[in-house]
Amino acid sequence: MPRTEPARGMRDFLPEDIRRREYVIGVIRRVYERYGFEPLETPAVENLETLMGKYGEEGNQLIFKILKRGEHEASGQADLALRYDLTVPLARVVAQYQSKLPRLFKRYQIQPVWRADRPARGRFREFCQCDVDSLGSTSPVIEAEVCAAVSDALTELGFTDFIIRLNHRQLLTSILNAAGIAESLHGTALVAVDKLDKIGPDGVKGEMRARGVESAAAARLLELFELLTKQRDQTRNVLGDEAGLAAFENVEAIFAHSQGTSAATRLRFDPSLARGLSYYTGAIMEITVPDLAGSLGGGGRYDNLVGMFLGQSVAACGFSLGLERILVVMGERGMFPPNLTTTAADVMMAVFDAADAPHALRVARVLRQCGLRVLVYPDADKIGKQIKYADSLAIPFVAILGGNEIAAGTVTVKNLSAQTQATYDQAAAGGAILEELRQRG
Amino acid sequence: MPRTEPARGMRDFLPEDIRRREYVIGVIRRVYERYGFEPLETPAVENLETLMGKYGEEGNQLIFKILKRGEHEASGQADLALRYDLTVPLARVVAQYQSKLPRLFKRYQIQPVWRADRPARGRFREFCQCDVDSLGSTSPVIEAEVCAAVSDALTELGFTDFIIRLNHRQLLTSILNAAGIAESLHGTALVAVDKLDKIGPDGVKGEMRARGVESAAAARLLELFELLTKQRDQTRNVLGDEAGLAAFENVEAIFAHSQGTSAATRLRFDPSLARGLSYYTGAIMEITVPDLAGSLGGGGRYDNLVGMFLGQSVAACGFSLGLERILVVMGERGMFPPNLTTTAADVMMAVFDAADAPHALRVARVLRQCGLRVLVYPDADKIGKQIKYADSLAIPFVAILGGNEIAAGTVTVKNLSAQTQATYDQAAAGGAILEELRQRG
Repeated sequence: MPRTEPARGMRDFLPEDIRRREYVIGVIRRVYERYGFEPLETPAVENLETLMGKYGEEGNQLIFKILKRGEHEASGQADLALRYDLTVPLARVVAQYQSKLPRLFKRYQIQPVWRADRPARGRFREFCQCDVDSLGSTSPVIEAEVCAAVSDALTELGFTDFIIRLNHRQLLTSILNAAGIAESLHGTALVAVDKLDKIGPDGVKGEMRARGVESAAAARLLELFELLTKQRDQTRNVLGDEAGLAAFENVEAIFAHSQGTSAATRLRFDPSLARGLSYYTGAIMEITVPDLAGSLGGGGRYDNLVGMFLGQSVAACGFSLGLERILVVMGERGMFPPNLTTTAADVMMAVFDAADAPHALRVARVLRQCGLRVLVYPDADKIGKQIKYADSLAIPFVAILGGNEIAAGTVTVKNLSAQTQATYDQAAAGGAILEELRQRG
Repeated sequence: MPRTEPARGMRDFLPEDIRRREYVIGVIRRVYERYGFEPLETPAVENLETLMGKYGEEGNQLIFKILKRGEHEASGQADLALRYDLTVPLARVVAQYQSKLPRLFKRYQIQPVWRADRPARGRFREFCQCDVDSLGSTSPVIEAEVCAAVSDALTELGFTDFIIRLNHRQLLTSILNAAGIAESLHGTALVAVDKLDKIGPDGVKGEMRARGVESAAAARLLELFELLTKQRDQTRNVLGDEAGLAAFENVEAIFAHSQGTSAATRLRFDPSLARGLSYYTGAIMEITVPDLAGSLGGGGRYDNLVGMFLGQSVAACGFSLGLERILVVMGERGMFPPNLTTTAADVMMAVFDAADAPHALRVARVLRQCGLRVLVYPDADKIGKQIKYADSLAIPFVAILGGNEIAAGTVTVKNLSAQTQATYDQAAAGGAILEELRQRG
């Protein structure tokens, strides 16, 4: 027999999974729309050249590549690839439809992406991202709004303990310079810095030395991170360069603009935050909760990415919530509303005799026209077996048609939990069931 | 500059497109749920071996294949593939989770599939299918229900002129036998028969002769099709074999069971209907409308497909609506409700001075808490330019904060279409705007 589990790192979603996913997506979408973001979708498949070189060297390797079709298939040449994130396709879309899109373009996009990553707990090869992005303005209003939007979304989902860490790519560069780390070592140093949460300051110092950063510079960098985390305003004294100071003023402006928003109590300056993706140019953000290694989402400003497709730069900034991580934490904490576990149907139609099945279908139609969800039991099994089946699926009502009912134009309705039953005119049964459902709450 | 259009045969969906897609998907989903179908989703990516050999020779060639990753990439070996339809993944899922699923499993699945087909009008390489399937029963109740479900969905979308053509794989085989066509030629003959709509009876006869079918047999087959289309009950006289007669009785039972459903006036017996996919074993169905070559959807019974994954056969029957075709016809006929073209926001927040932007974000929060969709204009452009921008996006209200308003805790609200304005306490503005929106209808 062939394998029947899904491909490695991929998942099937049974009805119960879908209801949870759709609940969370519904909340996020409603919040995003309240912020004036409009929906956008792009194809799962992009030209390979659109994606290559946008995510750094590691990203290139994790892109799923699709074989060129037809006679080229044998050569193993790839010309297409699966979407790796929602940001690069957005940049392509903005370049392609610039004349059709508003000057300030605010879009949300909730779609799966694919990465050939090593699967792990909460890390899959197909996973859903929930992105908001604003294009066309460099104002800190934009950063404040995307932070507020994701704060509202998480708050509405019931999260009370998340933090949005805020930093700035240029500020980080200036701090590395101030610590005395040569520009050529910034990349490798940041790989070490990125592990601060996992391996602690001493671990990071060790790793930086292994990567060729002088001990004194590494120590100075970690001191600076500690100092600036505690006393943000010291940044002005520590940094000598204009670009770094401008970046810090941008961070300050984001804090000031967030003052009256839901993000006000969430934002924390974190001078050590690096973010992996290579396209960020300004502010960078990441959301964490205490009981999850890794983040619930992240984002930042990327003013040059659209320019790679358009030839002229377009200001851009966004935030991406990771649906899978949110679901993992909500599941572990029991944060889903109890009424998500609906049954497949409100009513099951049962018949005594196979010859009566057409009548069952007709009465089912009448009940559906009242808005009820009706499952027609397809086989003329013993009536006890049919009722048992409805009970096993937690379907609350069984509507039974026998010869007497059909002759009289009636239907008998059993309430399985109340263990009551009553016979109604076929046209009146739907209303009676709806009333009983309302009373159950 | 790199290309910015989507990959060949793929599409980007801008906000207006998405609203139409979501409207149609919403209607279909609600109807499917009313029939007791539960949601299921499977990954976009399947193991290649899961898909190969399930769709016939042409299907194998149209499957998008994904390169094995890592060091194997250079060899051009593929181990994964993009989902080609929703039926084969369903069969895999039923085999995998059999012990967790109810004995009668009714699921709907609305997801994209990918085929490396030659793109044409209404034919894309990424397209969305809306499937319902019932597993676990051979009763004609099942066929009647899937036909009724798709009928209800199309009717709710406003279609009044669709037809569900109904045939049976075994009946078709028996008719070919009765016409004197050798079993070995059935496959090639059906390829010709499949073109009946396009090239007419004489064209089909010509093509059948070219494919090695004797003229007399070809002529007899087309006569039989014509006779049985007009006088369905002649089938019993024409067919001599038991299997064909049983198939005909099954077709009759599907008609009888559909009598009281919304499909009653839609079903037409069409003895020439063949359907391309190789996994069908019983009844086959296809939906057509007069102004579209090709179908809006199709389905049938496939009692052996799950067995290819499970080793024991599971009765199964389903129907698939093609979202893209439905959208094409609805667009051409102007069938979308007018209120689908909503604007990006209800209110735009404007400020006179950049320093006031934090206040704009605070007041935007208050308005959003009333349920309003609010777009904050991010830059301190001249107020006339800001208002013009709101107007260009058809945003009906602009809320303006100047120094006076901020000092007084008020906000000035302009109704752009009525050309009126009023100043409210910031806490009262949301209610006032909602009231004006209600009056506009």
